[in-house]
Amino acid sequence: MTSTKMPSIVHTGAEIRQLIHSAQLSGKRVGVVPTMGALHAGHLSLIDAAREQCDLVVATIFVNPTQFAPGEDFERYPRNLEADAAKLASCGCDIVFAPAVDEMYPQGYGTSIDVGAVSRPLEGERRPTHFAGVATVVLKLFQLVPANRAYFGHKDYQQTLVVRQMVRDLNVPIDIVVCPTVRETDGLAMSSRNAYLSPDERKRATALHDSMQLAAQLASTGERSVAKLTAAMEQHLNEVGGFVLDYIAFVRQDTVELVDEVTGPTVILIAAHLGQTRLIDNLVIG
Amino acid sequence: MTSTKMPSIVHTGAEIRQLIHSAQLSGKRVGVVPTMGALHAGHLSLIDAAREQCDLVVATIFVNPTQFAPGEDFERYPRNLEADAAKLASCGCDIVFAPAVDEMYPQGYGTSIDVGAVSRPLEGERRPTHFAGVATVVLKLFQLVPANRAYFGHKDYQQTLVVRQMVRDLNVPIDIVVCPTVRETDGLAMSSRNAYLSPDERKRATALHDSMQLAAQLASTGERSVAKLTAAMEQHLNEVGGFVLDYIAFVRQDTVELVDEVTGPTVILIAAHLGQTRLIDNLVIG
Repeated sequence: MTSTKMPSIVHTGAEIRQLIHSAQLSGKRVGVVPTMGALHAGHLSLIDAAREQCDLVVATIFVNPTQFAPGEDFERYPRNLEADAAKLASCGCDIVFAPAVDEMYPQGYGTSIDVGAVSRPLEGERRPTHFAGVATVVLKLFQLVPANRAYFGHKDYQQTLVVRQMVRDLNVPIDIVVCPTVRETDGLAMSSRNAYLSPDERKRATALHDSMQLAAQLASTGERSVAKLTAAMEQHLNEVGGFVLDYIAFVRQDTVELVDEVTGPTVILIAAHLGQTRLIDNLVIG
Repeated sequence: MTSTKMPSIVHTGAEIRQLIHSAQLSGKRVGVVPTMGALHAGHLSLIDAAREQCDLVVATIFVNPTQFAPGEDFERYPRNLEADAAKLASCGCDIVFAPAVDEMYPQGYGTSIDVGAVSRPLEGERRPTHFAGVATVVLKLFQLVPANRAYFGHKDYQQTLVVRQMVRDLNVPIDIVVCPTVRETDGLAMSSRNAYLSPDERKRATALHDSMQLAAQLASTGERSVAKLTAAMEQHLNEVGGFVLDYIAFVRQDTVELVDEVTGPTVILIAAHLGQTRLIDNLVIG
């Protein structure tokens, strides 16, 4: 590692805003990749996309307490700023904005953003305060880092809909770019939470993707019934074992509208507990 | 009226943002005055303040449906863009942003901003959806008109606290300037809703300010008890007659915390119905 390649690490809103402002005044296009750290190849693919499309690339690292409910994994969520900075350096990220919690939520903080219907079902039903926390922190980050483009991963499908809804409804002048899910060679979607899995759980975890692939195959050979596709997925997960299923849902692409039949572009959404770890994944079919 | 003095009237977000962006790129400081139109001398004093402190002055005119509850006066709220534009021209406003409702709230709109505790009591208790509507539309206007400073009147005291809370909590890069309430010569606070008053009601309406002045006098001569000051105000209002009181409240300045005694800077808040018209006013004492 050379010092010239390491990104600048900025901790205050005043400083990051000044840096972005200066860059934009000199005509630079700025891309931002909001993350909670614990970076993996999925995050780095977002940096790569930003690097390709923008002149200055900013990653934000902030484990946002307001998107975790009590009893979720806020406390144990992996944090390692130095390792993250080294990974970001390796793919040409220019600046890391890593605010402290009390920089983002000082005493007296009281505001929350509700994006409405798109945040209600699925993850919103299981994690009722989650998307308000996401929408609010993303809006805050977009005010502090007023980039031209922001990059999110498709793995958090409903989150991408929530962010798009918030940006559109609140007239935030930023383009949202959604990049494909990055997977391990055996198909498991990259996730910081994969680090929680035991070796045995790690092996079983591929069944999430495998079950969606199975549904995709059945759909491609003519099975339109979501009930039957879901049953096939559940059977596969039961055979592998170890899962407590939260939901399997088929929704019309770019929405959270449930469909009964696969008659066009459709997203399979799956959420399940494997031991102490909650995993989500999705796949576009049809 | 000459055409050179009339402000440009802009109806779309894309156009206003482009104008602001160009102005700021050329080093101009931009001031914005958000209004619902039906402009009076109070609004024009905000334009004057912006004119003094900024290089480009934008007024927004938008009767925001989401801050009215069903049964309130959204439908009959006075609208007269031409007269408003002429008034704005007379005090040197450069641009009027007057979006249509479906420009601000297109189909599929779903987002709302809740600023928490400061929005709950007083007006928030009587108008439970009001401040979410205010906070949301003001945030939207600040994204569309990313001015350096925004000007609000002290008459809507709790609104100024709500806007400050929203801007602070969401890291919106704009300075909020609160200007003094402008009054008619008999003391009645300027309000677009004064137009609803019958001649008889208009005469009685001065009792709101008179009663606060009475409390201010009693406080200045040693009466600290809010209960006694409130009783004196109520007695005065009863003597004048015609009012249905919503509330009289004494709060610590810059907060909505009720106080029992006037021991420092305190704001008297009053809200009352006079016939079909709901009026609010406030006065800083102590």
